[in-house]
This record gives sequence, C-alpha cells and structure tokens, in this order.
Amino acid sequence: MEIIKQFELSKEYLESLQQAIESQDLDFIQESLDGVNVADIAAVLDELSMEESIYVLRALPQQTAADILIELDDNTLFRVLKEYSEPEIASYIELMDSDDGADMLKLLGEREREEVISHFQDKLKSEQVLDLLRYEEDTAGGIMAKEFIRANKNWNVIQTINEIRRQAENVEKIFSIYVVNNRQQLLGRVSLKRIILAGENTKIEDIYEEEVISVPTYMDQEEVASIMRKYDLESVPVINAKNKLVGRITVDDILDVVQEEADEDIQAMAGISGDIEESDSIFMITKARLPWLLIGVMGGLMGAKIIGFFEDGLNKYLALASFIPLVAATGGNVGIQASSLIVQSLASKSVFDDTPFQRFFKGLMIALINGVVLGAFVFLVVVFLYGFEPIFGVTVGIALFCVVLLASFMGTVTPLVLNRFGINPAIASGPFITTTNDLLGLAVYFGVAMLLLNL
Amino acid sequence: MEIIKQFELSKEYLESLQQAIESQDLDFIQESLDGVNVADIAAVLDELSMEESIYVLRALPQQTAADILIELDDNTLFRVLKEYSEPEIASYIELMDSDDGADMLKLLGEREREEVISHFQDKLKSEQVLDLLRYEEDTAGGIMAKEFIRANKNWNVIQTINEIRRQAENVEKIFSIYVVNNRQQLLGRVSLKRIILAGENTKIEDIYEEEVISVPTYMDQEEVASIMRKYDLESVPVINAKNKLVGRITVDDILDVVQEEADEDIQAMAGISGDIEESDSIFMITKARLPWLLIGVMGGLMGAKIIGFFEDGLNKYLALASFIPLVAATGGNVGIQASSLIVQSLASKSVFDDTPFQRFFKGLMIALINGVVLGAFVFLVVVFLYGFEPIFGVTVGIALFCVVLLASFMGTVTPLVLNRFGINPAIASGPFITTTNDLLGLAVYFGVAMLLLNL
Repeated sequence: MEIIKQFELSKEYLESLQQAIESQDLDFIQESLDGVNVADIAAVLDELSMEESIYVLRALPQQTAADILIELDDNTLFRVLKEYSEPEIASYIELMDSDDGADMLKLLGEREREEVISHFQDKLKSEQVLDLLRYEEDTAGGIMAKEFIRANKNWNVIQTINEIRRQAENVEKIFSIYVVNNRQQLLGRVSLKRIILAGENTKIEDIYEEEVISVPTYMDQEEVASIMRKYDLESVPVINAKNKLVGRITVDDILDVVQEEADEDIQAMAGISGDIEESDSIFMITKARLPWLLIGVMGGLMGAKIIGFFEDGLNKYLALASFIPLVAATGGNVGIQASSLIVQSLASKSVFDDTPFQRFFKGLMIALINGVVLGAFVFLVVVFLYGFEPIFGVTVGIALFCVVLLASFMGTVTPLVLNRFGINPAIASGPFITTTNDLLGLAVYFGVAMLLLNL
Repeated sequence: MEIIKQFELSKEYLESLQQAIESQDLDFIQESLDGVNVADIAAVLDELSMEESIYVLRALPQQTAADILIELDDNTLFRVLKEYSEPEIASYIELMDSDDGADMLKLLGEREREEVISHFQDKLKSEQVLDLLRYEEDTAGGIMAKEFIRANKNWNVIQTINEIRRQAENVEKIFSIYVVNNRQQLLGRVSLKRIILAGENTKIEDIYEEEVISVPTYMDQEEVASIMRKYDLESVPVINAKNKLVGRITVDDILDVVQEEADEDIQAMAGISGDIEESDSIFMITKARLPWLLIGVMGGLMGAKIIGFFEDGLNKYLALASFIPLVAATGGNVGIQASSLIVQSLASKSVFDDTPFQRFFKGLMIALINGVVLGAFVFLVVVFLYGFEPIFGVTVGIALFCVVLLASFMGTVTPLVLNRFGINPAIASGPFITTTNDLLGLAVYFGVAMLLLNL
C-alpha cells in the first residue's frame, strides 16, 4: 500500500491520455482510470479541453461519470452540461444524491431545467430533487440531502436493519438513524453502533436518544456550520415548520461551507471580487482585481483634491507633506484591525456578548490607548529625533490621535451597518472602506494642522 | 421538541446559578445542568469566576466534568487545571479520548506532567495518551486519536461485532472499521453498514474495500484537511513509517483545523497577533494590536524621511505632495491582491500548477495590464480634469505604473519566500509588508518625478 492512495497525476499520464483520446483508445482510458478516485479524475479533466473531457466522461461507466460531474467546479460543470442532451442530464442526475442533483439542476436555465425534469424516470429521486429546488441556496434546506435512514419508533431492530438494507444503495454514508413518529416528526436518533449491539427484537423506542440537535430548513448555512462545529456533529437532521424530518446535512458539506466562507472573507479583505484562483486566466483575474484598484485610484485622486485644497498651508509648512503617508497608513491599519475583530465576533455571536454600550465603551478605550501611545511616540520622534519644532510635533501627534479614534469608529460601525443590511461585513476590511478612511484621515490631518499651526 | 435542542442560556439563569453556588445548592446545579450539552455548559463556565467554575465542575458527574474540560479554550483550561491536584487531573484524563487527554497534558509544565502521568491507573488509556505526546502539534500524529475499531482480515463478522462490543465504551463514534493484517498493517476499511448487511459468518477478507486513503503521522494538519475535504472523508486512518495503523482522525477535528487556519490568515492580514476575540479584555486586545500599529507608524516615520529627502523637488513642484496618497494606496492594494492570491494557491496546490516561469509570466502580464490601465486613467484625470500640465500627468501616470509593477512583484515573491522558510505566508498581506511596499512606492514615485520633471 502506498502512503496515501492518491492517483499519480503526472504530465506524462496526461499526454498519454490525450493520445488515447485522439486515437479513440477506449481501453486505455477505461483501464487507466479504473478505481481512481473521482476527485482525482475531475482534476485530470480540468487539464483537458472540453471535447476531450466529454469523450472521457462518455467512455466511463455512467455512475462514475455522474460522480465526477459532482466534483467539477460550477464553471466547468456548466460548460460540460451544455454539451449534453436533456435526457442525458436527467439520467446523470438520477444517479446522484438528491442535493448534488438539485445543485446541478440549479445551474440550468429555466427552460432547459423543465426539459430535463420531464425526462426523469425514477419517481422517488425526481421527487426528492424537485423538493430541494425550492430552498434558498445558502440555507440548511439548500445544502441538505434527502438520502437518510429513518426508523419509526415502533419498529424493532430487525425492521430497522431491513430498512437499511432497502436503502443501502441510496444512502452511501449512514451516521445516525433518525427516529420519527407516525406523523414523520423527528423524535431522536440512534447510532448504527447501538443497532449492531442491540438484540434483534429490541424496540427502537427503547434504545433511541431523545437529545438530538436539529436545524430548521431556513437556517443560514453559516449558522448550521457553527452548530455542527460546536457540538461536534457528523450529521444533522433538518426539520420543517411542523417538526417533520425533511433532510440531513453531513459534515463533509459543512467543511466546504466553512472553507468557502473563509475564502470569501479573505477575498473581500484583499479587494478581489468573485471566486477566482491564481490558476485562472489573465482576463478572469484582471476582471476580478481591476475594478477594486480603480476604486482605490479614484479615492487617491479625491485625496489629491483634498490636499490641493490645503495647498497654501502646505506651501508655508512643507514638512506637512512628509507625514501624509504616516497618517494615511495608520488610519488604514487601525480601521482594518477594528473591522476584522467585529467581523469575527459577528460570525461567532454568543448570548453573553457585551451589550452595545459595553462594546462601544471598550472600543473607545482601546482606541484611546492606541491613539495616545502612537501619538506620543510620533511626537517624541518628530521633535527629538527629527528635530522639528515642538508645535509641529504636537500637530502631527494630535492629528494621528484623531485619525486613530476616527478609524476605530469607522472600523467598528461599518461592518455592523453592512451586516444589518445583509451585506458581507468583511468588505469593511477591504479597499473601498480603507480608501474612505484614508480620505477622512487626510481631511482630519490637514484640519488639525490648519488650526494648530495657524496656516 | 424544540426547533434546536440548545440550552437556553440566559442572564437570568446565570444569576440563579451564581446564587446556587453561593448558597452551596448542589441540587439546583445538578438538576438545571442535567442533560445539557457539554459545549453549552462550557459556555456558561466562561461567564463564571474561576472559583465558581471549579465548584460547578466538582458538583457534576466526573465524566461530564471531563467532557466539559475538553470544550474549554486553552487559556481557561490552563487556569482551571491550576486549581486541580495531579491525581484529579490524571483521573479526568483517563475519562477522555486519548487525543483530548494528550492535548491537556501538553498544557502542563514538564514536572507537573510527569506527576500527573505517575497517577494514571488505566494502563491502556495511559499508554495511548503517552504515545500521542511525542507527535508534533500541527501534524496528523498530533491531532489523531487512538480510539478506533480495527479488525483482522481473518476475522468474520461475528468476531468483528464482538470487538465493537468490547470497545463500545471507548470508541464513541464509529465511521469505518479498519482492516489490518497480523502485523497491524493497514489493508483497507469496511463500513458499519456493510457489517450490518453481511451474514454473521462472512469473512472480513471478503467484504473489505482495499481502496482506503490514509495519511502518515508526519503530514501537516492543513494537508490532512485538504485531503479529507477533497475526498469527502468522515475519518482517515493514520499510519506510521511501517504502514502500521496507529490512529484515526475524524472530520470534526478537521472542521476546527479549517476554521483555525482561516482565522489565523485573516488575523495575519489584519495585523492582529495571537488568537484574540472582540470579547477579550482591553489589555489583551491592545497587546495584540499595538505592536503592529507601531510597525506601521515606524514605516510612516521612515516615509517622512524619504519625502524629506526630496524636499527640494517638492518645493519646486508642490503638486507632487497631492498624489502621495494615490501612489501609496495603489501600491498597497495591488500588493495585497497579489499576495492573497498566492497564499490561496499555496493552500490548494495541485500537480498541474503552472510552472514557476508560467506563473511569473502571468503575474507580469496582469501587472502590466493593471499598470497601463491605472496609469493611463490617472494621466487622463490629472491632465484633462484637474488641468495639470501634460508632463506632470505623464510623471504621475508612469510612477503609478512602476509602483503597480513593483507591488505586484513584491506581493508575489514575499509569500513564496515566507512559505519557503516555514512562515505563514498570509502575513505578506498584512501591515508589515504593506508598509514596506508603501516605502518602496514613495521612493519610486519621487525617483520618477526627479527624472521626468528635472527637479
């Protein structure tokens, strides 16, 4: 056994695969990919042209091809689907778990989607997939699957094992068996381990645990993630408004949610829009980066206007120019620190959070400490190390103090306001807000200077 | 059943709990917390004083108390442990899973740790815990647990079920049963579902899957996380250099790894050191923030020196001052974008990544496009909207172009170099590097101006 049984993805293999495709060598394709994990095959397809990918997918068993489709990213999948006919797409979807099938249907336009739906053969699967379509994407309903094992509380262990046998093909991973009453309402759960260790005639009623954590269909996926993380759950049942068990979310889906949300926040902070990667095309990357850079540049141009407005003062006291970067950078740094702490606390809100007043007071105290320390430090350096006159040191120090207070306030309030309006608060640590802070900082700096230096 | 069976954490409950502690009302404490999830009890303890927490922990059944200790964050746990005697700590550790027990032992000083170890009673558990101590913290060995079910390939189903029964108390969650040979080397896995559905006399040999993905003890935890995410694994076996099965990592631990790594990156980008939260004390937050702000301020003070160096030129062409924020901010924005894309691609490296040359070429192309667009835009605004003479527009435009190129280069190279030296590359998007970029940008800006404006 190898250390990790991963497929050896090499340039050499890729080349021989492309040759096999060109010479229509189905045997090579099938044999060389036999037993390879679908996630690895999907990575290979990413390196092929669309025609080559389709050729490989058609060469493989249909179930394997369906599993590979699930692993493709949305952009690639969308282009692959364009190459398939509606009946083909329908048959692939019927080979998937309901949540993956629903995600795939959602990629299609409405007309195409209806066409695909009309070709479904498997009544149960198509009902499950259609049921999932109506939930919003980022909610528990939007990420749950309909494949799970449920047992009536009146069943015994042997009846439950029969149900597992009946569903064995549909439900790949069984973590818990959910226990329901006759109205399909969730009562509790029983682990497979317990089923194995119980006698055949034991009633489910007697062995199930009543303490089960469930989530409602409308719960935001981030909240589902934090509950699963907090309680170390490997799966969580999803219930509707009537407590009816309607789906199950497994932790592997949640792992993706956590990673995606983190990537989103980092991209928002870095001023990159959309879900791009270093390996994307130059055009894609430029499209995601340039608009934010332009916003920053426009802010800088407005900054030039602000400084131009104070040109007379600057003329009299040229050294003011030297400290522009100091003031702007400190405002930016303070703002990003404050806002990212708020963003983090918004993500993990607890019942015992400080009251808004306490938070405001604490933020103010921290800003005061930072402002005083930084202002004093700068005063000392400017006067005693750089040899400027004391009044100039006082000016720069006080301006810095004011900028720290202002940037802390903006950094605290902006993510809270964005969050209230349902916008990702992480963009408060991004270039748009940082640019705004820079401009405010410049205005404060020159305002203080005009006042103190009598310009 | 409630929608989510979460404990109702309220200020009112907290107050009555504190009263009960004061009046030594053990009954109230035990009854009100009976059946409450340990994660919720841990959240309650966070709100109590250390003495109160210890009182509650001692009032609860020892197993519950041990489970609660696992849920505490490291700082709190460390302080709680100081209140316990070594024999007490030893008995708590024996009630934990081996990985949690080892983590707790690692918090203690060496002398105290040896003392605790000398009080272990349960030979198996103490061996398991001690074995885990020698692995490094952020590796597969450091996060794996010794609790898992292994079956010899020569066993039949009934022997395996007996093993499950024997281990039932130790191994809380069973995902897969790992199949080994007589030398304890990992051969494959068999799911509980398969065990349930197979006949009692079926040989394990005949039903196990040989395709099992395993990780070596020394693998970095981030890599383990990305493998588990890629292959949708709920648990992964850990093997040593001789292919011997030595542990198991479950996905709930990986969920924590993913979240922690993401938080670390965001804090590195925001210039916040250590793992702090908005709810921490003013002192803690200031300690985490102020050093980075001071670094930024020192950068700003150096910037003042650079600008001072060009004072004569500035005197002759005062408008140069107006565009300092534009140049500095754009350099910062470009650098953060470039470095965060690199950081992201480092986290998800694939075999088919572009070669270093291709990456360099692509980075250069993107930088050229961004530089040309932004430079041209600024030239147009400066000359036609702001009415400066063309040569000045050319100066600012070309300076901006150079700064974009330079910042792209620095933003690309810095995280790669940091990563090479084993430092978290995300700090390349943080204040230290951004400050350095600002300074380089200023030097380039004034250098270009001196040249083109003949200052």
